[in-house]
Amino acid sequence: MFPYERIIIIEKESKIAIYRQIAIALINAISNGTLKAGAHLPSSRELAKRLGVHRKTVIAGYEELVTQDWITIVPKKHVIVSANIPSLVPQKWHTNHISSYQYHFNLPFRTIVSPINKPVPNLISEIVIDDGHPDVRLSPIDELLRTYRSYTSKKHAIKDAHLGTEQGTLSLREELSKYLSETRGLNCSAENILITHGAQMSIYIASRLLLNPHSTIIVGNPNYPVANQTFEETGANLIDVSVDEHGIDVAAIEKICKKRKITAVYVIPHHHYPTAVTLSVERRMRLLELSSQYSFAIIEDDYDYDYHYTSSPYLPLASASHQGNVIYIGSFSKILDPSLRIGFMVAPKNFIDQCTTFRKIVDVGGDGYMQNALASLIKGGELKRHLKKAKKIYHQRRDILDQMLQEKLSKYVSYSVPTGGMSIWIKIRADIPVMQFLINSKLKIIRIDENQNAFRFGFASMDEKEIKLAVSTLEKLILPSNIERQNQTTQPI
Amino acid sequence: MFPYERIIIIEKESKIAIYRQIAIALINAISNGTLKAGAHLPSSRELAKRLGVHRKTVIAGYEELVTQDWITIVPKKHVIVSANIPSLVPQKWHTNHISSYQYHFNLPFRTIVSPINKPVPNLISEIVIDDGHPDVRLSPIDELLRTYRSYTSKKHAIKDAHLGTEQGTLSLREELSKYLSETRGLNCSAENILITHGAQMSIYIASRLLLNPHSTIIVGNPNYPVANQTFEETGANLIDVSVDEHGIDVAAIEKICKKRKITAVYVIPHHHYPTAVTLSVERRMRLLELSSQYSFAIIEDDYDYDYHYTSSPYLPLASASHQGNVIYIGSFSKILDPSLRIGFMVAPKNFIDQCTTFRKIVDVGGDGYMQNALASLIKGGELKRHLKKAKKIYHQRRDILDQMLQEKLSKYVSYSVPTGGMSIWIKIRADIPVMQFLINSKLKIIRIDENQNAFRFGFASMDEKEIKLAVSTLEKLILPSNIERQNQTTQPI
Repeated sequence: MFPYERIIIIEKESKIAIYRQIAIALINAISNGTLKAGAHLPSSRELAKRLGVHRKTVIAGYEELVTQDWITIVPKKHVIVSANIPSLVPQKWHTNHISSYQYHFNLPFRTIVSPINKPVPNLISEIVIDDGHPDVRLSPIDELLRTYRSYTSKKHAIKDAHLGTEQGTLSLREELSKYLSETRGLNCSAENILITHGAQMSIYIASRLLLNPHSTIIVGNPNYPVANQTFEETGANLIDVSVDEHGIDVAAIEKICKKRKITAVYVIPHHHYPTAVTLSVERRMRLLELSSQYSFAIIEDDYDYDYHYTSSPYLPLASASHQGNVIYIGSFSKILDPSLRIGFMVAPKNFIDQCTTFRKIVDVGGDGYMQNALASLIKGGELKRHLKKAKKIYHQRRDILDQMLQEKLSKYVSYSVPTGGMSIWIKIRADIPVMQFLINSKLKIIRIDENQNAFRFGFASMDEKEIKLAVSTLEKLILPSNIERQNQTTQPI
Repeated sequence: MFPYERIIIIEKESKIAIYRQIAIALINAISNGTLKAGAHLPSSRELAKRLGVHRKTVIAGYEELVTQDWITIVPKKHVIVSANIPSLVPQKWHTNHISSYQYHFNLPFRTIVSPINKPVPNLISEIVIDDGHPDVRLSPIDELLRTYRSYTSKKHAIKDAHLGTEQGTLSLREELSKYLSETRGLNCSAENILITHGAQMSIYIASRLLLNPHSTIIVGNPNYPVANQTFEETGANLIDVSVDEHGIDVAAIEKICKKRKITAVYVIPHHHYPTAVTLSVERRMRLLELSSQYSFAIIEDDYDYDYHYTSSPYLPLASASHQGNVIYIGSFSKILDPSLRIGFMVAPKNFIDQCTTFRKIVDVGGDGYMQNALASLIKGGELKRHLKKAKKIYHQRRDILDQMLQEKLSKYVSYSVPTGGMSIWIKIRADIPVMQFLINSKLKIIRIDENQNAFRFGFASMDEKEIKLAVSTLEKLILPSNIERQNQTTQPI
């Protein structure tokens, strides 16, 4: 509750009537922005009690304010600061002409971080094509929330859920270590696992512990742009290595290692971002050998392991003979719900211990109830059942998208059908500039690559009808007549 | 699903029978830890299908493994890797004597972060005294989760919840700006707000943008230790200024400013951590003047604004004439649920923009559904109703704790009753060493200060019965006879 007694100081000796003192104090508070348009004021009864004056005095003060249009009273409902005081309507902190202080930060920044992408316009489009999200409508969110609720009402869990969550709750780490063993052969225990808010946080923490301005890290080209930015932020040097249809070029990595010291290599072995290719077995083996020979860490971002349709996944680098050099990263945001911020990192215990200490200063820890609810989802087998179901449905959706693209857009686009994952990387014909058409009120595409004139089509979150509608809409936007018209509009002769 | 076809490679030309090839491959996978004790194997039918062999062949292989005690079969239920293969029971990644590789990270760390506290032993105690948490049993978690669920099932929200959450969802930022205006006179709009995972993440992000090895920041002594560690991690110099019963010593800050350039001052104006004192009005005003005169940023950590019992809260520094130098930090973890990881930072737009860009590389963003559910809790007035109710109950609990301490422990402890907040800072008599008695199977205390021989007693999360039990247990542990006995045991003559 707002401390009105701090801004309405009543002087009983003053010649100004008390009701007017109240009105003036409130006008001041509204004028200088302390009370904003639309803010609720207390009832006259309540304010009178708090100020220690008669209720009629407050009513008189409020009436004064109503007469001057500062406030609006809806009897027996509420008293609010008027929304339409002319001089206050456009008022915002940093462009506040009434208040005497400015709200612009003029002190030096330690560092300036530049946004990497042209921001996607914040307009509402009928169709949104994401860059590969699960379909939340299929996810066992009900089970998850039911369990969550049962934890918050249990006395015992209350005392425990917020304790020791820097590393993640023990029950989630234990279930996860079994799950990772059963699904991908990772030989780890709870102490090798750090629970984070998602794959990105794992990348951030690992790179803060590994990299400094004297380090060099090798990344694919193209690469997940946020990862590159994360590495750059540590001051490390980045070296690009090309990514072909078998993944990152490991022979090129070897050449670099012969010339200079490499601290780490970042790889996305399953369904490279953005191109969705898979790293071949030969290259995986060679990369592990190089890691051992030249002593570099491998950051293995395996966010897309769980969805494979036409072939089995390869076991992670982290499940092979890795000498303790592999940091394995994954996320539940990609399995259940992009909004569910739970990911993980698997690494040697001494590395995880350091990451945990560092993570505590980043944000203390995660949501213990949600982690335990997820643990019970894994333990009960719901997660596996969900994945089995989702895999079947996403497989169908991939095929529907492929078929639709062939039917409607084969003249304009080229792509490879990925063996798994949740998206297709689609290149557009060079004469059709992707940026100009694909963000508007009908359609918004989250991941567009202007240089490659390509975009990522996340098919998993759309059902058959939605995929068909999205492709037809794309077709309409791409149709030569539209493009010509657009070109004529933007480049008049 | 585990890709068994990658580890069981059947050579039809081999002289080894296929069922034995299967058994050998599985033994290898178990031996080197790829399949862990307790891992589920597929049914014989399923494995046969995946390997392209007859089901009887797989059954023969499994029988071989059962004979050798590698696996356990519960007919029609499951096939699991035996839990009691003697040589495998103690197997853990980093102490794995069987596998040829070691799981210890031997590459150089960029930096070593040391834990600040002696870790609290991970034992389960009957009673846990936290350092000031809300009582989740009173919180409107049901409403929150109901709304959360309604968002995950709405198609429209699905597409939006994960977009643009780097800064926090617009609806939460809009509701919060009204709420902060109504409760504490902050004149800000949605663009001045960054939603984070809690107060600590706000501190982390702000300090990463403000501080570097050439900066100096002033902090209270004593101070919230994790904040100090966060500032140290940026490489900045920390200067301690003492905290007395009126809060941080602002005159001492002025003296320092006259001598050297100060980048920032970190203050906890309501209920300083750990001592729970409130910064006086005079010092607040003076600090703002100094900030303007000497151009330093004020990081105002006002985590405990919402709970006041015997006096009104002071308005935040951020609601006064602050020249855009104040970065205001708060959290919902302290209002609703320590496990609900939602906090905020209010600052000039240009600062928030930078923080948002930086935050994106830390962990992408928050849980959009939960943020929108919280927004609707604020909008519907549930949050205010909850706070009103909780304030009344916590007030009673503070008084019960005070009364119990007077009754049972007045000979051993000293403290001031705070005017608000969720905890009392209790100093123990010098001859009773706090560390030795207060963590055991009966009682665990989360925040102990060994130097001051003091601890924080969070009373808000305990009902009357629990507070009484906790104090009686403390009494028993502190009783002179117990202490003597303990001293005799540890220091035999």
